[in-house]
Amino acid sequence: MSEQKKKTNIILFSGDYDKAMAAYIIANGAAAYDHDVTIFHTFWGLNALRKDQQVPVKKGFLEKMFGKMMPRGADKMGLSKMNFAGIGPKMIKHVIKKHNAMPLPQLIEMAKEQDIKLVACQMTVDLLGLSKEELMDGIEYAGVAAYLADAEEGNVNLFI
Amino acid sequence: MSEQKKKTNIILFSGDYDKAMAAYIIANGAAAYDHDVTIFHTFWGLNALRKDQQVPVKKGFLEKMFGKMMPRGADKMGLSKMNFAGIGPKMIKHVIKKHNAMPLPQLIEMAKEQDIKLVACQMTVDLLGLSKEELMDGIEYAGVAAYLADAEEGNVNLFI
Amino acid sequence: MSEQKKKTNIILFSGDYDKAMAAYIIANGAAAYDHDVTIFHTFWGLNALRKDQQVPVKKGFLEKMFGKMMPRGADKMGLSKMNFAGIGPKMIKHVIKKHNAMPLPQLIEMAKEQDIKLVACQMTVDLLGLSKEELMDGIEYAGVAAYLADAEEGNVNLFI
Repeated sequence: MSEQKKKTNIILFSGDYDKAMAAYIIANGAAAYDHDVTIFHTFWGLNALRKDQQVPVKKGFLEKMFGKMMPRGADKMGLSKMNFAGIGPKMIKHVIKKHNAMPLPQLIEMAKEQDIKLVACQMTVDLLGLSKEELMDGIEYAGVAAYLADAEEGNVNLFI
Repeated sequence: MSEQKKKTNIILFSGDYDKAMAAYIIANGAAAYDHDVTIFHTFWGLNALRKDQQVPVKKGFLEKMFGKMMPRGADKMGLSKMNFAGIGPKMIKHVIKKHNAMPLPQLIEMAKEQDIKLVACQMTVDLLGLSKEELMDGIEYAGVAAYLADAEEGNVNLFI
Repeated sequence: MSEQKKKTNIILFSGDYDKAMAAYIIANGAAAYDHDVTIFHTFWGLNALRKDQQVPVKKGFLEKMFGKMMPRGADKMGLSKMNFAGIGPKMIKHVIKKHNAMPLPQLIEMAKEQDIKLVACQMTVDLLGLSKEELMDGIEYAGVAAYLADAEEGNVNLFI
């Protein structure tokens, strides 16, 4: 007799602060409305899951390059528009504070508390040379098959 | 006996002319096929709803900065690719005219005539320091809860 | 008695190598899970369908400009992030090879073999001045109406 819960599945491809904010606001909203929610992080979206401190891991040359060039965690991500070498993100964080909105790292914490499933795409984790030690604890690793299994039952599917 | 209308819900996050064109073409198409259609404008997508003239509003410093740096209305938006300091948009508008396609401001007018619901995300309106006087008349203001209420019944949900 | 097949419909708007990779990986995955899959290429996404050799076609000035400035085929596309004047794509292709992942041109070949419907948006083909001789054989040409007919029955609809 039990009705199935609605499902929201977001692919977070983008490594931009503003796009990741949009993804996590929708995800947290959907969880508050009792959806089963998954955020599947792939390519640059994986940076939202990086720990902000440097983790000593042995890597090849290209993997080291990617690791150095990509932002370490949500707070260090840039904007998709008007980034201006990092001034844009500061402006946005300032107005977020002023309007009592939530900055991205807090939105991610809230997502964890609401049991939103945070997934890292195993294939792109490998391609970008990231290791599990560098990413947040408590996340899952999966591929396109797992994504599709969720998404084909989804009510709200988005690619961000 | 009446069947429910199909629903198309588009989040327009992007402030690019070409992406907004895609959003409005899909929206107008869906409305012509008798869908209930909503475009939820957030972040840079709000610029498509800005009036093209300057509206005198009292603002703080950062809000004034955002207001100055962001394009005033659909016609002033740039391209996501090959923008070349504004030459790209001119090229695109030229070929749009040549092929009797519709430029973005006309697509937005058409959307209004087809009763497509144009929504401005209240939270990002506040963050970017926009005021209702600066945005088109006849639009709605809402948040993620309203978006999800539409989207969870949606047949076509897109994030652009 | 037969159950209808699930449907995945992807709009590929982006002309970036990494985003097109994501689109084709999801599409190939969905086809492997027996979905009916369509990739609708519009705007810069059309470049993924271009032949890599130059095809002699008579064109107007703007169309020639677009033709020259846009990448000829999947292998020549840039990255959405960290493109660094073409070094980024080389790095990505290197790690793709290293990890035995599939580069984009191969993913497109696989899509054809799996009978994924590859569609070029007629309107943007016209706007960008592309001709059928310049695009791959065996693709379809259609507009927003055909897209919506597929998408309104879709289980997974994405805009990439």
